[in-house]
Amino acid sequence: MKFTFVTLFPNLIEFYFQDSILKRAVESGFVEYEFYNPRDYTQNKHLKVDAPMISGGAGMLMTCQPLFDCLDAIKAKNEEAYIIFPLAAAKAFKQNDAKRLSKKKNIVFVSGRYEGIDERVIEKYADEVFSIGEFILTGGELPSLTMMDAISRNVEGVLGNAESLEVESYENQLLEAPSFAKPEIFENLSVVKEFLKGNHSKISDLKFQMSICKTKYYRPNKEKR
Amino acid sequence: MKFTFVTLFPNLIEFYFQDSILKRAVESGFVEYEFYNPRDYTQNKHLKVDAPMISGGAGMLMTCQPLFDCLDAIKAKNEEAYIIFPLAAAKAFKQNDAKRLSKKKNIVFVSGRYEGIDERVIEKYADEVFSIGEFILTGGELPSLTMMDAISRNVEGVLGNAESLEVESYENQLLEAPSFAKPEIFENLSVVKEFLKGNHSKISDLKFQMSICKTKYYRPNKEKR
Repeated sequence: MKFTFVTLFPNLIEFYFQDSILKRAVESGFVEYEFYNPRDYTQNKHLKVDAPMISGGAGMLMTCQPLFDCLDAIKAKNEEAYIIFPLAAAKAFKQNDAKRLSKKKNIVFVSGRYEGIDERVIEKYADEVFSIGEFILTGGELPSLTMMDAISRNVEGVLGNAESLEVESYENQLLEAPSFAKPEIFENLSVVKEFLKGNHSKISDLKFQMSICKTKYYRPNKEKR
Repeated sequence: MKFTFVTLFPNLIEFYFQDSILKRAVESGFVEYEFYNPRDYTQNKHLKVDAPMISGGAGMLMTCQPLFDCLDAIKAKNEEAYIIFPLAAAKAFKQNDAKRLSKKKNIVFVSGRYEGIDERVIEKYADEVFSIGEFILTGGELPSLTMMDAISRNVEGVLGNAESLEVESYENQLLEAPSFAKPEIFENLSVVKEFLKGNHSKISDLKFQMSICKTKYYRPNKEKR
C-alpha cells in the first residue's frame, strides 16, 4: 500500500513513520509513503498557494491552480491513485472505511491549510471526503495521519500476529469491556473478581454485558438502531 | 497552556511542534509542552511496561505500576494537571470540549499502546476520557495530538487575528458552506455565480441554505434534535 500525502508541511507528517509500528511496516515493505508539495506546482511568481475567499468570509483559501497541477501529476504517475480530502464538513470516517480502504493500492490524502481549499478542487478530484470528528484543526495533516494509521493496521503484514486481534473496540459495533493485566491487586485496586476464576464462558458473558453497558453510556444513539 | 504528554514514543509527538502554527505558538510562549515516558518509571528489571491481559483476550496491556508512578510524579509537580485518556471506548471529543479545555492551565494526555491500558489506571487518574472517532489506531499519540491541536487553536494568542474567525465549521452547529478563491473561472469551473454579485445579504442567505443542505446530507442525525 502506498500513501501519498499532498501537504504544504511534509515535516508534520514524516516523523510518524520514524518510530514504532509504521516504521517497521515501511522497513518490511508493507507500506510506502511519499510527499507532494503544492508549492512546487504554483505558477505564482511569489510562490503563493493561497488567496482571499471570494464573497466575504475572512481568511485565505488554498487555490485551484497549484492543486490541479499537483493532483494531475499524481494521477499521471499512478493510475490507481484514490484521492481523499479530510474536511471538517464531510461524513465521519469509521472503522469500516479503514477496512475497506486497506484494499486500495494507492491512497492520496490532500491536506488543507488556512481556511481550507477552493471547493472546485474537491469537486474535480475527490474520490471520497471524510471528517475524523466534529472539531476544528489547524490543517488536514493530523486527520490524514489518523486515517492512514487506521487503514494501515488492516493492511496485511503491518501488525504482527500477537497484535492482530479478532475482537477489538468497534469491530463488533460494541465498545470494548475494561481490560486488566497483572498484578491482580495493585495499591488496593483489584481486577474484576470474576476474571480470576477461570470460567471462560462466565467471563465472556460478563465482558459482553460490560460492553453493552459501556456502549449504552458512551454511544446512546447506537442502541436505538 | 502547558501540554504534558505521557507516551512511550515521544518522537511520534514532538515533530508536530517543529513547524507551522504550533511552532510559532511555542516560540511566542502561548503553548509549552513536555514529555513523560512510563518506561522511566517502571520497577521491572527488564524495563517492561506491559503484561498479558488477565482472563484471556490476546495481546498486552500497559500495566499499573509504571503509569501510577509516572502520573503521581506529574501531579506532585503540577497541582493543576488535568488528566485526559484518549480511548477508543469513550465519549466523542467535540468542538465544545476544545473550547472548554482551552481554559485549563495544564492538560496531560496519556497515550495507550499495545492493546490499551489496565482499567485501574484510568479509574484512578482520569479527569476525562475521550474518543476522537469510531476507528482503531495503533496508539493514543495521534488522538492526543489531535485534541491538543483543536484545544490550542482556542488558546488566546495562538492564532493570528486573520485566522481567528468567528464563523467556522461546527461553531454554529452547521457545516460550513463551500468556499472559493480567485480566479472566478478556472479550467471552465466557475465559482457560485451569486457570490460574485456583491449582494451580501443574498450571499449570506445562500451560504446559510448551503450549510443546511450540507449538514442534512453529512449529519442527518443533527437535523432531528
